[in-house]
This record gives sequence, structure tokens and C-alpha cells, in this order.
Amino acid sequence: MHVGTVVGHVWATQKDATLEGLRFLVIQPLTAGGDTSAETYVAADPIGAGIGERVLVVHGRAARHVMGRGHDIGFQTAVAAIIDRMELANGRAVGTTQEEDLPAH
Amino acid sequence: MHVGTVVGHVWATQKDATLEGLRFLVIQPLTAGGDTSAETYVAADPIGAGIGERVLVVHGRAARHVMGRGHDIGFQTAVAAIIDRMELANGRAVGTTQEEDLPAH
Amino acid sequence: MHVGTVVGHVWATQKDATLEGLRFLVIQPLTAGGDTSAETYVAADPIGAGIGERVLVVHGRAARHVMGRGHDIGFQTAVAAIIDRMELANGRAVGTTQEEDLPAH
Amino acid sequence: MHVGTVVGHVWATQKDATLEGLRFLVIQPLTAGGDTSAETYVAADPIGAGIGERVLVVHGRAARHVMGRGHDIGFQTAVAAIIDRMELANGRAVGTTQEEDLPAH
Amino acid sequence: MHVGTVVGHVWATQKDATLEGLRFLVIQPLTAGGDTSAETYVAADPIGAGIGERVLVVHGRAARHVMGRGHDIGFQTAVAAIIDRMELANGRAVGTTQEEDLPAH
Repeated sequence: MHVGTVVGHVWATQKDATLEGLRFLVIQPLTAGGDTSAETYVAADPIGAGIGERVLVVHGRAARHVMGRGHDIGFQTAVAAIIDRMELANGRAVGTTQEEDLPAH
Repeated sequence: MHVGTVVGHVWATQKDATLEGLRFLVIQPLTAGGDTSAETYVAADPIGAGIGERVLVVHGRAARHVMGRGHDIGFQTAVAAIIDRMELANGRAVGTTQEEDLPAH
Repeated sequence: MHVGTVVGHVWATQKDATLEGLRFLVIQPLTAGGDTSAETYVAADPIGAGIGERVLVVHGRAARHVMGRGHDIGFQTAVAAIIDRMELANGRAVGTTQEEDLPAH
Repeated sequence: MHVGTVVGHVWATQKDATLEGLRFLVIQPLTAGGDTSAETYVAADPIGAGIGERVLVVHGRAARHVMGRGHDIGFQTAVAAIIDRMELANGRAVGTTQEEDLPAH
Repeated sequence: MHVGTVVGHVWATQKDATLEGLRFLVIQPLTAGGDTSAETYVAADPIGAGIGERVLVVHGRAARHVMGRGHDIGFQTAVAAIIDRMELANGRAVGTTQEEDLPAH
């Protein structure tokens, strides 16, 4: 499972019938160092995350569970949570949409 | 799931019997920054995507669902949708075959 | 399965119901050369590993087993063990939280 | 699924009983740009591909299907087809063992 | 499936009960070019491979088969074979623990 930032939306008309009515987000992985990788991917979103929000993304069986449409579906990646806060040992903290430096301790 | 661009076709005569009659496309992953990775892969295509079109590609159980030939098949990657439009927070938009800059807002 | 170091925590309020009450850690992969990659990921932790501890992390079905909540869950990565010691042929040894050079032999 | 080139063979005496009597090939992934990655992997081959031939390789359930030995086996990667021809939008074409430039159009 | 070299051991006391009594090895992937990647991982070993030996490593269902402890286990990677010899088209050959150049032909 990865933490990623929502950076876009995807629309498609010609698609597998099981994709009907779903929201598809473009996700950019977030690294501990604060860099964002360019290797984006697409996730179905049952929660309603917005642009710039950090989310927890899952794949495969976990993604099918999260979407609640059974196992015969044509997608495999989904948003399982919207992150409130991520605190890192290197003194960096990330909120839902902003980041800050933790006080040294 | 990834968005990729269709960049080629693959033909094979000696193959597993379950690959008979399928269209196989070469897919190049699309990144948020606009770069295209050289790490291509191959997907079965039940929709009929053409060269240069952006597609949503799925793997494993989702790919078997999309192809509709059951679970005892010798392939694992398939096109689930043709992308109409992808809009990114960095002001970039991608249509089915072309791309543009979004007006600043 | 990878050995990683616990480098952070993640909290989320809006989430799939099956994530309720779980501890989520940010994990940084550990390489044989001693480098730590920036490509972190998130794991559920049923054992109680602390910041800086080395852990063995598993994915998919193994992660669902480790968490003991059945297969209909919205996460796919979990801590399976806390590492006591890792000894490498290049003379490097790693304890739970510290590392040392092995005597030449 | 990836297209790769057969670059070697692997032999093993001490092995899981389900690997008995199988041919194991070393595969080098082929990229659209014409580069070959050094990140090789090993595939079981039920078709009889030779050194230098391009093959379509599948993983997991698809690989178990292709090998036809059921699901209780100790390998997970297999050759599903020998590529006759791969044509790319960048004007490059790849045959089973050789490559050429396509006429501009 | 990958060929890797055994470069270390891992010990853990606090662990999922299904890991009890297993040998865990640190594996370094072997590339066709002769380079060894620093991206090590951990595999359970039912065969008894030693430091410096080349092994064939499998994941997921294949790994669970190889270990013979059923599917409700907390690990997902295992040694399926000890490599006797790997011969590559670039004139390189690798034995269980040493390597040599093949005579030109």
C-alpha cells in the first residue's frame, strides 16, 4: 500500500461495463524524502478525495473489497483512505493537503 | 492500473491456444510529467484501440474479467477503457490522442 | 518479502471500515549495501514495531493471514516479524535498531 | 505481459519436484526504444523457444495455465508465445530474431 | 522467477506463528550483465542453500507450494531450486557459486 497525492482525473466513455459510474483519480506516489515520483497510476475512488489530498491506495483483492462491487470487475486499484496526518522520523509531517517540519526533539 | 499510449502491435503464430484470435497491443506508460517511459508491455485489447490512443490498462483478475474468456487463459494484461480526457493539477490535459495546456486558474 | 525500517506513522479518519483500529506504519526498504531507498510504503502492524526497528514485511495473501481479519479487507501489506539480526556476506550485520561491522574471517 | 529475448538456459538438480522435466530460459526484457534491460528473469518454456528468439512471457495464474500442470506448482513465469513480428509506431519492427526499420509513411 | 545469490541470513523472535522454524535468507538478484543489484529481498528456504550459492526464487502461490505448509501462512517468497549452471548467450556462464567465460563459438 502506498501514500499518494491526487493529481488529476480521468474520463472514459468506451470502457468495460463494470467501470460505469466510477470516479477515477490520477495518483502520484509520495516518498519519505518529500520527492514526488513522476510514475503516476490510476485508482478508483469510493471516498471522494479531492485534488491535492493525500490518500492510501490499495491493489488487487483489497481494492475490490474497498469498491464493494464483487470480484468480477475490470479495475484493480482503489483509494482505501484519506490521510489525516503522516509523521516521519526525519522530522517531516504531512497533513491531508499541506506539509510542515516537526519541532526537533 | 495505468494510463498508457498504444505504440505498436504484436503477432504470434506459435502460442497458447487461449491467445487465438486476440489483438495484442504494445503499450507505453504515460507519466504525469509528460514523459513516456521506454518500459513497454503487451496488453490484449477487446475494445479496438488504435495507434496513438491513450488507454487504461489492468492486470491479473481484472484483465481476465475484461476479456470475458474465463480464468483459464494464458494472458494477464488487458485494455479496460479508451481514455477520453485526463486533466492534471499541473495544468496539463491529455485527450484520446493529443495533449494541450489547461488555462491557468 | 523485504526487510524495511519503520520511519513513520499514518493516521486516517475517512477510510474503509476494515481499516478501523489498525496501526499503520511507513516503511523504508533496507538494501544489502546499507542504503535506504526513498520509495517508502505503508504496512499494517499487528506486532507493535517502533520507529527505527527493522521489520519483515509481506504482501497480499500473506499480509491478510498475518492480520487475522479474513480476506475481505481493504489493505494488503503487513509486518510479519521484527528482525533480531541480519548477517550479510559482505561483513555487515544489522540488529533490530543498530548496525555493526562483522569481524573479518 | 512483456516481450523478451531468450538469452540463456538454467539447470538445477536440487529443486522442487514440480520443476522436474521443465525447460527454464533466461529472458531479457525488450523495450520500445530498442534497448535491452539487464534485469533478466527466468521462465518455464512449454513451446521450445531458442536463444535469440523473442517471446511473450506471462506470470502467475496465466503462467500456470500455459504450463498445464495445475495450480500446485513451484514456478510462476512461463513463455506463452513466440513472437513472429512486433511493429512499433516509431518506425521500428522486430521479427522473431532480427529487427529492421519500417519504411516511413 | 529470478535467479539470485544467497548473501545473508535473517533471524526474528517476534513473528507470525507460521514463520516458526523456517530458515530465512537474504537474496541479491543476479543480472545477465554480471552486475548484482543492491535491491535485496528475503526468501524462506526449504532446500538448504548456503551463502554464495545461486538459487531460483519464486513468489506468491508458487512460494506457498514450495514450502508445503498450506496457504494460510505469513510469508510469500521461497527458494524453489539451487542453480547448477546458467549459460548465457553473451558468453558468460554461472555455476552454483563461481562463474567463468564460455569458449567463443
